[in-house]
Amino acid sequence: MGEFDLIERYFKRPVRAAVLGVGDDCALLQAGPGTQLAISSDMLVEGRHFLSTVDPFKLGHKALAVNLSDLAACGAKPLAFTLALALPRADEAWLEPFSRGLLALADAHGCELIGGDTTQGPLNICVTVFGEVPVLAGRSQALLRSGAKVGDDIYVSGNVGDARLALEVFRGTLNVPGPVFAQARARMEQPTPRVALGQALRGVANAAIDVSDGLLGDLGHILSQSGVGACFETPFATDLIACRSNPAWSGCQSDLCLSDEHWLELVLAGGDDYELVFTASASARAAVLEAARSSQTAVTRVGQIEAAPGLRLIDAAGQLMRRSYPSFDHFA
Amino acid sequence: MGEFDLIERYFKRPVRAAVLGVGDDCALLQAGPGTQLAISSDMLVEGRHFLSTVDPFKLGHKALAVNLSDLAACGAKPLAFTLALALPRADEAWLEPFSRGLLALADAHGCELIGGDTTQGPLNICVTVFGEVPVLAGRSQALLRSGAKVGDDIYVSGNVGDARLALEVFRGTLNVPGPVFAQARARMEQPTPRVALGQALRGVANAAIDVSDGLLGDLGHILSQSGVGACFETPFATDLIACRSNPAWSGCQSDLCLSDEHWLELVLAGGDDYELVFTASASARAAVLEAARSSQTAVTRVGQIEAAPGLRLIDAAGQLMRRSYPSFDHFA
Repeated sequence: MGEFDLIERYFKRPVRAAVLGVGDDCALLQAGPGTQLAISSDMLVEGRHFLSTVDPFKLGHKALAVNLSDLAACGAKPLAFTLALALPRADEAWLEPFSRGLLALADAHGCELIGGDTTQGPLNICVTVFGEVPVLAGRSQALLRSGAKVGDDIYVSGNVGDARLALEVFRGTLNVPGPVFAQARARMEQPTPRVALGQALRGVANAAIDVSDGLLGDLGHILSQSGVGACFETPFATDLIACRSNPAWSGCQSDLCLSDEHWLELVLAGGDDYELVFTASASARAAVLEAARSSQTAVTRVGQIEAAPGLRLIDAAGQLMRRSYPSFDHFA
Repeated sequence: MGEFDLIERYFKRPVRAAVLGVGDDCALLQAGPGTQLAISSDMLVEGRHFLSTVDPFKLGHKALAVNLSDLAACGAKPLAFTLALALPRADEAWLEPFSRGLLALADAHGCELIGGDTTQGPLNICVTVFGEVPVLAGRSQALLRSGAKVGDDIYVSGNVGDARLALEVFRGTLNVPGPVFAQARARMEQPTPRVALGQALRGVANAAIDVSDGLLGDLGHILSQSGVGACFETPFATDLIACRSNPAWSGCQSDLCLSDEHWLELVLAGGDDYELVFTASASARAAVLEAARSSQTAVTRVGQIEAAPGLRLIDAAGQLMRRSYPSFDHFA
């Protein structure tokens, strides 16, 4: 039984008081007439989501960043968060930089720590974040996974695949030049939640999700929840991984080089990217570019929503590819 | 460094957008003109908050109950909750009863599961709960720890000390008749959050807190946050532990008997009770009794708020006692 089956079987039920329940990036609760509260919770476990050797300052950043990324995927403005923390011991040398990293990102987004819990136990960090989404003329402005329409363009923000490259170096399955590893590691350890882009896409994008488990897997959630399919242009995708254009590659030993196939796999199935994948109608292209400009976030068009179910990968020659890429599942 | 010092030093900051931040049973966020959202988060760790042998159905109940108890202490009406769950493996024989116990209590309180996270890791259950509190004529009706006034009566709901008795039997430091253990164990494993009483006390009580770390320690938070002291009548307290009047004691071996001193320690420093301690002015006695009646919850008057700082324990002869009782601290 995988993570999504587990949630589906034991914890998903019909929505009652909430506007939106289990199964999107955030849940939505009505909060007064013109506002909805977007809520998301993410738990980080040592050895699973971070290495025991990680700098606590960076871990504090990441614990909040992955939650802010869920707000971004809903187009919500961050308001506040709670922190529940299990620690093996009350270690000030860890707590001081952890809280500094956490609160620096919180301050950068005007997101206030309002409560939580601390207890003794194996290191576990659980953040629950609250944001607000306007309701205009009775219509929620939240971006959902379920809104993609046939003919929509598919976009990805920023860079994808670098975090996975760093993970593979840590695992010892890849060997890359030092500056490439440093670049990839920064992306893995201190992801940038696309909060401003998410808000700028309200009223522009039809559907959105954040990339935490892998680009294709997360796009797959949009497709299944919208009841549509897609074609995905892989030549655009291979440019999404920032490390590929690092100048340290030039002149390095050829045994360090990665194949095109390898680069593509890092991008499509990497995970831990915290970028946004979203869809918008072709008539909204100028509005998407304006949202990218105003939020100072690059976006790349990588495909199109189609009526036929499934996800079709297209190669540089315009041909259908046969490979499939798994998404990350915590219980697979 | 203890749990409260840790929070104070690294995570407590001046409140900005929130109505109330770190340091009460719940945080409060404004949610429309007439309502505040009360938010609380509690993390349960195996071996610390529950034994690995506990019935998963009861654990599901308790994971939500301890959070509902925080809402009760604020006088909030439960609305919804998120669940973040780290599991060693996706074990259906555990998940099925766990989710049943959790959702049964949720349904009993009309509190909807709206989202969360599941991941692989050492067993850890983090629930964040949301409730609502009315704002009447610009005044929040939330019960806070900081509202106790000199001359207030001090009350305790239900029974206190039984959960600790069960814990001591599990630890092997106490030996009691079987039916007494069964009674105590039920209180430890399936506490009853005083949600109806908390709401009935809005506009009646001046201050409230739930008893999770120990009766005197938690009352101490009311005293320090209200800037007052109290006298506490111990003869009333020894009646608070339900197990003491279990008929199984009669005729049992004398070496099983507990001293008065021991009973009092279980009540005053027990913890894990999830009852409410609250204060109300002497003129509100009839209103307190009506709140107890309407919520079908017993309340016992155990002392009085005084101007002189500190907590004075009074014995049956009306004399000041010299003992002090520690509160439970996860890092002490």
